Amino acid sequence: MSSEFSRLIMGVWRIGDWAMRPAEVADLIEACLDLGIDTFDLADIYNGYQCEAMFGAALATRPALKPRLKLISKCGIALVTPARPQHRVKHYNTSRAHIIASAEHSLQAIGVEQLDLLLIHRPDPLMDADEVAEAFAALKQAGKVKAFGVSNFLPHQFELLQSRLAEPLVANQIEISLLHTAPLFDGSLDLAQRQRTMPQAWSPLGGGRLSSTPAESALGRVLQRLGDELHATPEQLAIAWLLRHPARIHPVVGSGKLQRIRELVAAQNLALDRQQWFELLEAAMGREMP
Amino acid sequence: MSSEFSRLIMGVWRIGDWAMRPAEVADLIEACLDLGIDTFDLADIYNGYQCEAMFGAALATRPALKPRLKLISKCGIALVTPARPQHRVKHYNTSRAHIIASAEHSLQAIGVEQLDLLLIHRPDPLMDADEVAEAFAALKQAGKVKAFGVSNFLPHQFELLQSRLAEPLVANQIEISLLHTAPLFDGSLDLAQRQRTMPQAWSPLGGGRLSSTPAESALGRVLQRLGDELHATPEQLAIAWLLRHPARIHPVVGSGKLQRIRELVAAQNLALDRQQWFELLEAAMGREMP
Amino acid sequence: MSSEFSRLIMGVWRIGDWAMRPAEVADLIEACLDLGIDTFDLADIYNGYQCEAMFGAALATRPALKPRLKLISKCGIALVTPARPQHRVKHYNTSRAHIIASAEHSLQAIGVEQLDLLLIHRPDPLMDADEVAEAFAALKQAGKVKAFGVSNFLPHQFELLQSRLAEPLVANQIEISLLHTAPLFDGSLDLAQRQRTMPQAWSPLGGGRLSSTPAESALGRVLQRLGDELHATPEQLAIAWLLRHPARIHPVVGSGKLQRIRELVAAQNLALDRQQWFELLEAAMGREMP
Repeated sequence: MSSEFSRLIMGVWRIGDWAMRPAEVADLIEACLDLGIDTFDLADIYNGYQCEAMFGAALATRPALKPRLKLISKCGIALVTPARPQHRVKHYNTSRAHIIASAEHSLQAIGVEQLDLLLIHRPDPLMDADEVAEAFAALKQAGKVKAFGVSNFLPHQFELLQSRLAEPLVANQIEISLLHTAPLFDGSLDLAQRQRTMPQAWSPLGGGRLSSTPAESALGRVLQRLGDELHATPEQLAIAWLLRHPARIHPVVGSGKLQRIRELVAAQNLALDRQQWFELLEAAMGREMP
Repeated sequence: MSSEFSRLIMGVWRIGDWAMRPAEVADLIEACLDLGIDTFDLADIYNGYQCEAMFGAALATRPALKPRLKLISKCGIALVTPARPQHRVKHYNTSRAHIIASAEHSLQAIGVEQLDLLLIHRPDPLMDADEVAEAFAALKQAGKVKAFGVSNFLPHQFELLQSRLAEPLVANQIEISLLHTAPLFDGSLDLAQRQRTMPQAWSPLGGGRLSSTPAESALGRVLQRLGDELHATPEQLAIAWLLRHPARIHPVVGSGKLQRIRELVAAQNLALDRQQWFELLEAAMGREMP
Repeated sequence: MSSEFSRLIMGVWRIGDWAMRPAEVADLIEACLDLGIDTFDLADIYNGYQCEAMFGAALATRPALKPRLKLISKCGIALVTPARPQHRVKHYNTSRAHIIASAEHSLQAIGVEQLDLLLIHRPDPLMDADEVAEAFAALKQAGKVKAFGVSNFLPHQFELLQSRLAEPLVANQIEISLLHTAPLFDGSLDLAQRQRTMPQAWSPLGGGRLSSTPAESALGRVLQRLGDELHATPEQLAIAWLLRHPARIHPVVGSGKLQRIRELVAAQNLALDRQQWFELLEAAMGREMP
């Protein structure tokens, strides 16, 4: 297994909405692999803590797929949900015991022996970085997780955890899109580039808001014009805009529709030049660069 | 003298309001020692520049207490007050000469030969870090101050000063409480944990505002419920909430009433679990974690 | 040529407004040198991309001045202007090719063989720090630029670029003045002092707004009173206020009027004490220090 993740990552968090039988999910996974997407993004809490078991059920119908996949999971958020009746309040848990138990539960639910990447899902104000380091070391030592990263961490949170680890954190999965440009300016992407950490972009299409961008808005007009020039959909432009960034952003795309995934894969061939990139940014922000 | 400060620190800034004779203050100091509080927090400017002399007058009535105490003082703020007629405007002074003169004045006023910890009281926009380093080195060399720290410093201010010092800053005394949660998120506690610097919390009870939290507010309700469950006062919960943080926060409690101090000392035995901690945080912030 | 720049830097960005013939500009340059100002600040884009050619035309009338000058230029901004018809949108360009081409164009326009300092004009969200490092190395190697810096960079942007360079960035030219005090508090000057980077202050007089500060405002009153005490103009006080800072701020003054430059040069002899400095700061901010 190479140390590289595919540039586009398939997000599985909406698996409960796909309304597919396990074998159909397996078809979708195989189709993604054929399109060059070999990395799948899960988390303990997705779909009411059922996402990993549903993904595992799909893999169980076609076990030969397993060695072809790279699997990301996450832990650290505790939701109030019928599946966890002991939770009274939404909270975070980055204790050693919880991280290890959650990762082991993910492996069992998915039906594999190793995660390629385990992320701490949210910066926990109660994080004891030494405990997290112990949990990571134990999971690595046991062969249960290959590499570690974080999600939604700001630079100072990233640097705290990194300071206790022998190996570099390999990823920070954050919200970045034309509809959420803050990480371009708040230091997140600067630190990622500096540390050569992989930024992964969740909601790269603004959680669906991109599709509903009014045609007469500044962004709508630029998307229309560039789309005409480059023969591209707004979604393709939004993905190409992320891919153009020098920090090597890996968008997490989360559709259950193969045709849509194919469209987004094709966006990898769309090369935006600097002016096109800035036209999109300035239209999205509603102001010129200073 | 051990290098450890007691987990609770006795704040002496309100000594002028205690309305006690020196021998009564000495009684209070001795009672604190018997309760395990051996660290006392002073500053040149407290009580109109009179706090240290009043504390010193108390010690003079019972000199045997002196070797049992650990003393913190601060310098760097210049107040407009009749005691300093040369001050026209509130300002900061972190010049070499001022730091040394202020520390020497503190020693004389308290009547001891060494401070255990000297803090720069506020980040001074005119701070010349090399000058501060010279002052610290001179005071250390002369045996007048054992260790150094800061107060109210943000991470970038801390890192500037640290960059010029041969030894680590040992403390940053900042405002942290259920009524001031910013340091959990702005990098202050992350840097403290990363550098293993002791955070000291001033106004750990919100400067009295905790006691007046309306019973029907979100925070009031959680304090009531947890208080009932754990047989604890709101003040005890607020201290236990600080003590639960992995950065090892040292609350500075500032009461002249022994019964109240006893209550807060007892909060050290109150173990909040993660959910209780987050219930308090979310009620205090008025929103769920993301 | 010494490695030091004069403490005051002559800003040439308004050269188009000076309404001077080349020989008159040469007179002004020579007069600045006689006043001890040997450093001149230009940029590719100033005056509709014509500033450097106009400055070069002046030097062409008196080539003996050239070896006495230290020259700063900048690149990285792309303006929409008739002089650059290919630009559809204001954008930034920190590609290797653009940096090298822009610096070479600056040399040709000015008519010199080396820039003393080349700055990246704005933090570019598309900056590939490795590419910038390659451009800097190529320009240095070719003897075309002696040293490198940035402008308007926040600390995280500065640290990203620095992480890829073999030599320290020597300057960050940012807006600092009594009318723009943010860099005193946002970490910019702390990082400059920590890294011993030269801060250069653009608009040190608030872009003319200082002169129109109402006499009855808090700042107006302090400027009046201190001006009377110290026999100084508001502009001189504003420059002296910058010079007092320990980070060794180098103000970029941009007048075409020799008398005015003489006045500002004289401000270097004006020593503000701490209270005067804080009186100005607090009046400018409209509040006391905490």
